[in-house]
Amino acid sequence: MIQKGLKGIVTAETLISHIDGEIGELFYRGYDIKEIARNNSFEETAYLLWFGHFPDAEQLAALKGDLKSNRGLPEYIMRIINQLPLDMDLMSVIRTAISAEAGYFDYGWKPTVTQAIRLTALTPTIIAYRKSQLEGKKFVSPRNDLDHVENYLYMLYGNVPSSAHVEALETYMVLTLEHGMNASTFSARVTVSTESDLVSAITSAIGTMKGPLHGGAPSGVIELLDEIAMGAEPEMVIREKVLRGEKLMGFGHRVYKTHDPRAIALKAKIMELVGEDEWLDLAMLVEDTAVRVLAELKPGRSLYTNVEFYAAAIMKAINMDSELFTPTFTASRTVGWTAHVLEQAENNTIYRPQSKYIGTFK
Amino acid sequence: MIQKGLKGIVTAETLISHIDGEIGELFYRGYDIKEIARNNSFEETAYLLWFGHFPDAEQLAALKGDLKSNRGLPEYIMRIINQLPLDMDLMSVIRTAISAEAGYFDYGWKPTVTQAIRLTALTPTIIAYRKSQLEGKKFVSPRNDLDHVENYLYMLYGNVPSSAHVEALETYMVLTLEHGMNASTFSARVTVSTESDLVSAITSAIGTMKGPLHGGAPSGVIELLDEIAMGAEPEMVIREKVLRGEKLMGFGHRVYKTHDPRAIALKAKIMELVGEDEWLDLAMLVEDTAVRVLAELKPGRSLYTNVEFYAAAIMKAINMDSELFTPTFTASRTVGWTAHVLEQAENNTIYRPQSKYIGTFK
Repeated sequence: MIQKGLKGIVTAETLISHIDGEIGELFYRGYDIKEIARNNSFEETAYLLWFGHFPDAEQLAALKGDLKSNRGLPEYIMRIINQLPLDMDLMSVIRTAISAEAGYFDYGWKPTVTQAIRLTALTPTIIAYRKSQLEGKKFVSPRNDLDHVENYLYMLYGNVPSSAHVEALETYMVLTLEHGMNASTFSARVTVSTESDLVSAITSAIGTMKGPLHGGAPSGVIELLDEIAMGAEPEMVIREKVLRGEKLMGFGHRVYKTHDPRAIALKAKIMELVGEDEWLDLAMLVEDTAVRVLAELKPGRSLYTNVEFYAAAIMKAINMDSELFTPTFTASRTVGWTAHVLEQAENNTIYRPQSKYIGTFK
Repeated sequence: MIQKGLKGIVTAETLISHIDGEIGELFYRGYDIKEIARNNSFEETAYLLWFGHFPDAEQLAALKGDLKSNRGLPEYIMRIINQLPLDMDLMSVIRTAISAEAGYFDYGWKPTVTQAIRLTALTPTIIAYRKSQLEGKKFVSPRNDLDHVENYLYMLYGNVPSSAHVEALETYMVLTLEHGMNASTFSARVTVSTESDLVSAITSAIGTMKGPLHGGAPSGVIELLDEIAMGAEPEMVIREKVLRGEKLMGFGHRVYKTHDPRAIALKAKIMELVGEDEWLDLAMLVEDTAVRVLAELKPGRSLYTNVEFYAAAIMKAINMDSELFTPTFTASRTVGWTAHVLEQAENNTIYRPQSKYIGTFK
């Protein structure tokens, strides 16, 4: 039997996360992500994913310190980014810069948490550095008094962001740090399984996430929000799209047969921020309408809002260009990738499946 | 059931190659590689793997022309290689340079043979360019009157190599162009399965091949040959190693339960070259001795010579440093990787296996 795509094949036992698509639940290290999104920062959640438990105050301070001290790009990586053609897509830039990082540090087998922290710290800086280069602006260096997500927004836009914007983006990032054995995470585990190294594994994962089938980055929903923000009547726009047979982006998910727990957690956060940002308010209006119209026109289809829907609203709220969506998703998922690589290395078996020859012999 | 490492799981139907480990046979596109190694050049065999049939004279000339016209490194990639720390390992350098190539050319979905030819043409130049930089020597630019393997040796060493050396290396490369669903090839297929691109896929494959468990590069055998070349008596050295319980590198293979067909083909080529090079002659003496000693001391174990044994002799003969072994293997395997990526893209399913959570809930 040919296991194309390995659907339903369990390739690893894991302690990192659990997805229950039937009841719409996602757990990091046994903790419900809806609780985590309400209570925990990027740093606390990254610590949880890497170490298996939440940090105490001292451990959290140490992790924040490590992330800060690894934020600066080595000069030679800046020069390499400067050399890359300006029309090169941002995911290829990140992949190349992370690959080049192999020369800075000893990334030999086995991978370590120290290495994971470093790659996680570098990725936002790579994105912000490239953005400044593309815009012909001076690069805004990281600021050591800012935490991870706040500093990312600071480097991107050159000013300290509002707390509503930080909270919204941080919640998105916390909720997308990890999501089981998806294609990019799987590619990272396959790569490291030859006793290669963490840089190689993350380079593979970035190249895999780059593909449009990967999903998770909120690119598809923007058009809908823009159309409505420009004055179109929500119910009419949505009704026409559904009646024309178009797929309504931001609704339905391959894994979740019911609510996407990340969408619920993002919505809860956005409800806390009501009145803070018009895009967030708009998104709630659009969701209400869409859920109602879908229930009427596609009864029984269970097309619930997915994580990308509210993520798109957050990206609009923080005024992030769509080219930065998948890179920002990459900056968050690096935590999950590295956690999986560390787990794979702990109890490694090389991945060597088979192929079946179906040609003739000459 | 947990399919760790996916052993025995068939993940794809393929028209590219067939391995029969029980009877020790390997076929490229239905052709026995022992025949191919005797009769066909690197270019002819690469054509076969990419297009499914051998080229006619015109098609061969066109492929040679395409490989030649794509040999030159873009200036910006040279500058990037110049920026990489000198102690960065060569596989990481190749991975970074190939990743950077995404900015030169439109590598969007779907991957094409034109892209495959270009990456195959570039890899030897990347290796030679970095070698010249590390040695502080002027880079020897590719020469358009030389074919692929001859030009590779020319760029590495600055002079036109002997035909015995070209034939020996070319036979090794032809025999290692492709070998089914190994870890690096699998990682390339996983990466492209999100509708990512060929550069991403090959970047993954390079990072995966880098790991010491991957195998295929003849690093392990050199010590044995060196020891004997320095004057040690072959039978005594080998007997003592086996009696001490050391693994005799270059003998036995995970897949082949009998002869490794690539070793047979390499040996046949080396026998044609008897008297041309003392390392090749020495290797045949050592093999005879080792096979005899193993049969006596480990009866029934079927420890036949594998491809790495004769490959090591060839590397000694052409005076190639051991740091160049895995890179040279990479330069040849790029053909198989790209052929698999093209096949994956033709009839794609995204790879999305599962993991099983074995932790507790908090």
